[in-house]
Amino acid sequence: MTKLINDPRNYVDEMLDGLCLAHPGLVRVGDDRRAIARNAPAKAGKVGVVSGGGSGHLPLFTGYVGEGLLDACAIGNVFEGPTINACQDAIAAANGGAGVLCLFGNYGGDRMNFEMACEFADLEGIETRTVLGNDDIASASYEERAKRRGVAGLIFAYKAACAMAARGADLAGVADIAQRTVDRTRTVGVAVSPCLIPGAAAPSFTLGENEIEMGMGIHGEPGIWRKQMQPADALVDEMTDMLLKERPQGATRVAVLVNSLGSTPFEELFILYRRLATRLGEAGLEIAQRLVGPYVTSMEMGGASISLCFLDDEIEGLLSAPADCPFWKVN
Amino acid sequence: MTKLINDPRNYVDEMLDGLCLAHPGLVRVGDDRRAIARNAPAKAGKVGVVSGGGSGHLPLFTGYVGEGLLDACAIGNVFEGPTINACQDAIAAANGGAGVLCLFGNYGGDRMNFEMACEFADLEGIETRTVLGNDDIASASYEERAKRRGVAGLIFAYKAACAMAARGADLAGVADIAQRTVDRTRTVGVAVSPCLIPGAAAPSFTLGENEIEMGMGIHGEPGIWRKQMQPADALVDEMTDMLLKERPQGATRVAVLVNSLGSTPFEELFILYRRLATRLGEAGLEIAQRLVGPYVTSMEMGGASISLCFLDDEIEGLLSAPADCPFWKVN
Repeated sequence: MTKLINDPRNYVDEMLDGLCLAHPGLVRVGDDRRAIARNAPAKAGKVGVVSGGGSGHLPLFTGYVGEGLLDACAIGNVFEGPTINACQDAIAAANGGAGVLCLFGNYGGDRMNFEMACEFADLEGIETRTVLGNDDIASASYEERAKRRGVAGLIFAYKAACAMAARGADLAGVADIAQRTVDRTRTVGVAVSPCLIPGAAAPSFTLGENEIEMGMGIHGEPGIWRKQMQPADALVDEMTDMLLKERPQGATRVAVLVNSLGSTPFEELFILYRRLATRLGEAGLEIAQRLVGPYVTSMEMGGASISLCFLDDEIEGLLSAPADCPFWKVN
Repeated sequence: MTKLINDPRNYVDEMLDGLCLAHPGLVRVGDDRRAIARNAPAKAGKVGVVSGGGSGHLPLFTGYVGEGLLDACAIGNVFEGPTINACQDAIAAANGGAGVLCLFGNYGGDRMNFEMACEFADLEGIETRTVLGNDDIASASYEERAKRRGVAGLIFAYKAACAMAARGADLAGVADIAQRTVDRTRTVGVAVSPCLIPGAAAPSFTLGENEIEMGMGIHGEPGIWRKQMQPADALVDEMTDMLLKERPQGATRVAVLVNSLGSTPFEELFILYRRLATRLGEAGLEIAQRLVGPYVTSMEMGGASISLCFLDDEIEGLLSAPADCPFWKVN
């Protein structure tokens, strides 16, 4: 896990500088410059949509700021939630006078800081709503799904909510579609190798040679089982079965994300996608949209996740609306 | 290096199936289906542009088939050149009656098989030209640059040549711009960890803990030096110095590619880009276009390469022409 970095203490700031230099449509904002916004004034009268979370997950979170996607994003240290200040800065940057939706993953630190930031926003007359991504089916049972973590499927909620905001919906309408998209999205991942936080002496978890963990979270949180490696098709079958157990009634169309957690290459993602497409076809589900690539990572963690967003007509239309950010372009 | 695969003998075919399922604009063609083409007839009267090479480098080679990019691509086993048949199939799929440019990296096996395929094409009345990518400055001296390997910078030649063909240029014109783009493109890479060919018992090279190799090729070919890890900025400085030594007279604008060889994450690429942007600015070079991400990989190899394409007005215009393939969209 040799890393191409400088002083680990400067990792996040240098990374953010590079991101904004490489993508001039983005800019660092706020006193500590730990929020990323579009390099343009907030659109007056449009509901703003912000997200936030720890560093180390690119393209999540900051890479999804752009046209038809997030207005701004608060960013913390590696695998740490953003500060209250950063959340405030993101909300301020996204505020066009019609309220701001805070849409982020269900993690305690992130929730606490966004909650405080929303209270401060309220004092400044900015109305906010919060919707939490909780798509990771391995992190709690269906009955306790409010406890589930948010992982890769969050980007479907980004896309739907931001397209709704771009169409001129009010804050309640944007929050409702975000919540409905979250409610119809499920993810499960399998980890095959760890990652290393810059400056840390050792990875936060270890896996034996040829050992894998089903359901592990994007920070190495415990999953469902740990076993020797199995063929990709067998893994996809198990993951698909888990995902389809929570298929909403009447759902016949899905958007699919086969996501690399970091070092798992495109070739392997396509091998996974091949089996997934067969299995979804057999289950009578039509794949309306698909993403295959590194969309939500944990630096160089090895493994992949599969997300299904069970579509309705409105969500499907919103997912295919035009968008243009550094990592996701829809024409 | 635990891999999410099935039987290694099916790796390439399953990967190609998944690629085409995930990107319905692509289709496998030919008797052994080892060429990828656009899922549409060749455009009559347009010069075709094909490439080819071994598997394991996605998005290269097959991921660059699309509108405004390659018409077809021959694909071999992992790190092996495509067969003569596959090259013929790609040429046939790209043939719109105006000739076909074969544009690929300077590797012996690929050259031999494309050469034979071009002879067969000639017998069938298809005119061909060949241009070889040779951007890897670490692989031979400037004086012997015809011996240099082709690596990540090849995609600039793809883009320029394919845009030229889309504009209606004849075969000579398309080949000329491809050659000029190759001539003005330089790449150097640094490897920090190896990859494993599916089914192989061990990686084809090893690096000690914290050891890196400057100038290593994308199949692990020997580089310039092997040392302990250094800060990212120092590596970028050394790479930039090497690249700028071959700056063409009068060049003031560049297109830049900071490329992950596989497992090196976006965060580190942006840290590299940050320093590169500073260095190029100091050298009086304006970055007209930039790509930062995994564009030419070696599966899960760790490391990064930096490519500079020294622009002239014509190449710059061609690089910014519209294109849409699975891994590169230009509006």
